[in-house]
Amino acid sequence: MDYSLILKNVAKHIHLTSGEQEVFTSMLKEKEIKRKAFYLKENEICPDSVFVCRGCLRSYTVDTEGFEHVLQFAPPDWWIADMYSLISQKPGTLNIDALEDSVVLLLSRKEQEQLFIQVPSFERFFRILTEKSLVANRQRVLDSLSLTAQEKFELFCQHYPTLIDRLPQKQIASYIGVTPEFLSKVKAAYFKSGETTYKDR
Amino acid sequence: MDYSLILKNVAKHIHLTSGEQEVFTSMLKEKEIKRKAFYLKENEICPDSVFVCRGCLRSYTVDTEGFEHVLQFAPPDWWIADMYSLISQKPGTLNIDALEDSVVLLLSRKEQEQLFIQVPSFERFFRILTEKSLVANRQRVLDSLSLTAQEKFELFCQHYPTLIDRLPQKQIASYIGVTPEFLSKVKAAYFKSGETTYKDR
Repeated sequence: MDYSLILKNVAKHIHLTSGEQEVFTSMLKEKEIKRKAFYLKENEICPDSVFVCRGCLRSYTVDTEGFEHVLQFAPPDWWIADMYSLISQKPGTLNIDALEDSVVLLLSRKEQEQLFIQVPSFERFFRILTEKSLVANRQRVLDSLSLTAQEKFELFCQHYPTLIDRLPQKQIASYIGVTPEFLSKVKAAYFKSGETTYKDR
Repeated sequence: MDYSLILKNVAKHIHLTSGEQEVFTSMLKEKEIKRKAFYLKENEICPDSVFVCRGCLRSYTVDTEGFEHVLQFAPPDWWIADMYSLISQKPGTLNIDALEDSVVLLLSRKEQEQLFIQVPSFERFFRILTEKSLVANRQRVLDSLSLTAQEKFELFCQHYPTLIDRLPQKQIASYIGVTPEFLSKVKAAYFKSGETTYKDR
């Protein structure tokens, strides 16, 4: 298994000795998830922090009328989990599935607690990771209250630049909170107005 | 200064020796914030993590049309900050002001970094705090995509039970993302349907 991507990800925030790298990587489990297969279903307990090496995962809920609402996409180099369930070890509300054939590394909550004891600087790593995720989520709460669909789409392009042409329109619409038909109009208006607006930002 | 509330808050997640408690409390600065006074304005750099001892603070943005959108309320025993600005030490987008005469304890980012060195278990404390905040914010993103105004109001009652009768209706409306007039109707329908629904949940 090639751990270079996850070690680079960790090295963005903390320095590990080669011994500490070994402790860490020995706790990871590799898993393949085929397109459309689930990593986690609603009402299950989320056992792991999931790091995406290849492919793309997403987390979402399904409302009482059957509509899907996407919380997060995770392309390579991203972490994903049902944080509520992972932290509390109680059944969660999120589904996590693969939008493409994917390969992930799993760090179980139990191994993670062990890791905090053996390599305490991982407390720092996961604190920083969680802080960054919190900042992004808080911004999304504010965006949902104050932005138009067009502005939300522009932000999506900035936040997930690698996913715009890669994901089905339906998925992006479900993240922004509009119908696919409405997103079509938003995109048309956006690209007509000149992509330079986006590139210049 | 009485540090009992903040020490109890910390003790929920980590154990401190009396020496460590002293290191921590020696870093805190007390501040009074009068009703309607600002702790932080948009475009300023957020210098501190703010712990509320008395009163109530809120964080919010103002959109281009002048409408306020509330991200968070902080009654006593809650922490509040512009996390983006605090972490990056760049100018933020949030305003933080007091809805009532308030007393807070401030832990500056600089002192916090020092604290992580002197009492490393605080990495754990702030990781857990950030995780919990992240879970709440993720849920709010999903709620904003999938819930009705009535359901959002019910969740507000669960999340901030001490604030329902204490805050002006305008503030709650601005958190839920509806007009005060619409919130009036939602509340009337909610209380007419019997508060037992809420108590039974």
